[in-house]
Amino acid sequence: MQTLTRFRRRLPMETLSRLPVYREQLLALSLASVKVASSREVAAKLGVSDAQLRRDLSYLGLFGRPGLGYQVDNLVEKINEALGLEQKWSLAIVGCGALGTALARYEGFAPNNMEVTAIFDVDPKRVGKQVGNAHVQPMDAIQEILGAKRVDIAIITVPASRAQGVADAVVSAGVKAILNFAPVAISVPEGVIVRNVDISSELQILTHLITTGGA
Amino acid sequence: MQTLTRFRRRLPMETLSRLPVYREQLLALSLASVKVASSREVAAKLGVSDAQLRRDLSYLGLFGRPGLGYQVDNLVEKINEALGLEQKWSLAIVGCGALGTALARYEGFAPNNMEVTAIFDVDPKRVGKQVGNAHVQPMDAIQEILGAKRVDIAIITVPASRAQGVADAVVSAGVKAILNFAPVAISVPEGVIVRNVDISSELQILTHLITTGGA
Repeated sequence: MQTLTRFRRRLPMETLSRLPVYREQLLALSLASVKVASSREVAAKLGVSDAQLRRDLSYLGLFGRPGLGYQVDNLVEKINEALGLEQKWSLAIVGCGALGTALARYEGFAPNNMEVTAIFDVDPKRVGKQVGNAHVQPMDAIQEILGAKRVDIAIITVPASRAQGVADAVVSAGVKAILNFAPVAISVPEGVIVRNVDISSELQILTHLITTGGA
Repeated sequence: MQTLTRFRRRLPMETLSRLPVYREQLLALSLASVKVASSREVAAKLGVSDAQLRRDLSYLGLFGRPGLGYQVDNLVEKINEALGLEQKWSLAIVGCGALGTALARYEGFAPNNMEVTAIFDVDPKRVGKQVGNAHVQPMDAIQEILGAKRVDIAIITVPASRAQGVADAVVSAGVKAILNFAPVAISVPEGVIVRNVDISSELQILTHLITTGGA
């Protein structure tokens, strides 16, 4: 049994970072035609403690009843709402090298109600090529196209030396959030959100942890 | 002026996660032939406060002297030591789809003293193909090859449904750490380290933050 309260409150970062994983597992349960599951079953499936799951879901206004369990589809719907996935999102990929190309072909956007509507590259040889569902556009058209496509999130996959320039351009075109794959810290004005995904950093964190004694 | 103390102590996670970014910027300074820089200059370049930088570096046994500044190359060397980058690391990529292929071609490994020594895929059509510097091997040879190549870190880029099976296989072959790109939590025995890079999760965190009022 869950409440129907609509939520649009900022979640604690720890809870927020677990929701997409919960969602993924719940979608798998749903695909397997599981309709109702106890919080213990769901928690076990998700690899968290029962208490943790209940606490996280309570932030969404979801309170499972002992003995009744959660309705899987309802959980998915509430998590979608919390994550803002009931609306459609327009993404741009800036930098169409190997990583940008892989991302443009990534099949995980559509199920999240996200679409890559524009791809940019500085290299004239890449401009015009179709990659995934979009054609590569020249970097100097970035402001105009981001505005026209109403892009919400820019995925930056250019080299470190050009990341700040790209960030400045996408921000002035009205982009609200950046997922930055360039191995460099970028500065943005207040109100713009940046998340960094740095493969090289992740590997260096692992090598530190290995050489200091494992997990 | 820095001490010569050798460090192999587990760093606080916050400091650790900043070191690779510091390192990247310091390498750029070094390439630009900058030999000595004040902590204020270095901090500004790195986008952190002077105090933050000093605190982070103090964990490495590095104490800059007011008026003298840091020697850039020495900083890089100490950060390399702390990150375990003075030794060579053998990596394997498991799953050679679009993302696995992009990673195999990634040029950021060698400068970090890392090398992709093996790539695996279940698809017989992909087996034997050269991707980056390695040839794709069949998944059923994974145990044998990981052992022979003394692979330290496995990068998992298979679909969510196969990630746990791959994790089990690489762990039993002696791999000490996993960088997991599959959008699912994987369980490993104590002593094995897992870091997750989940693009879909990152985007969902961004959409939550946008819909709850920006940064």
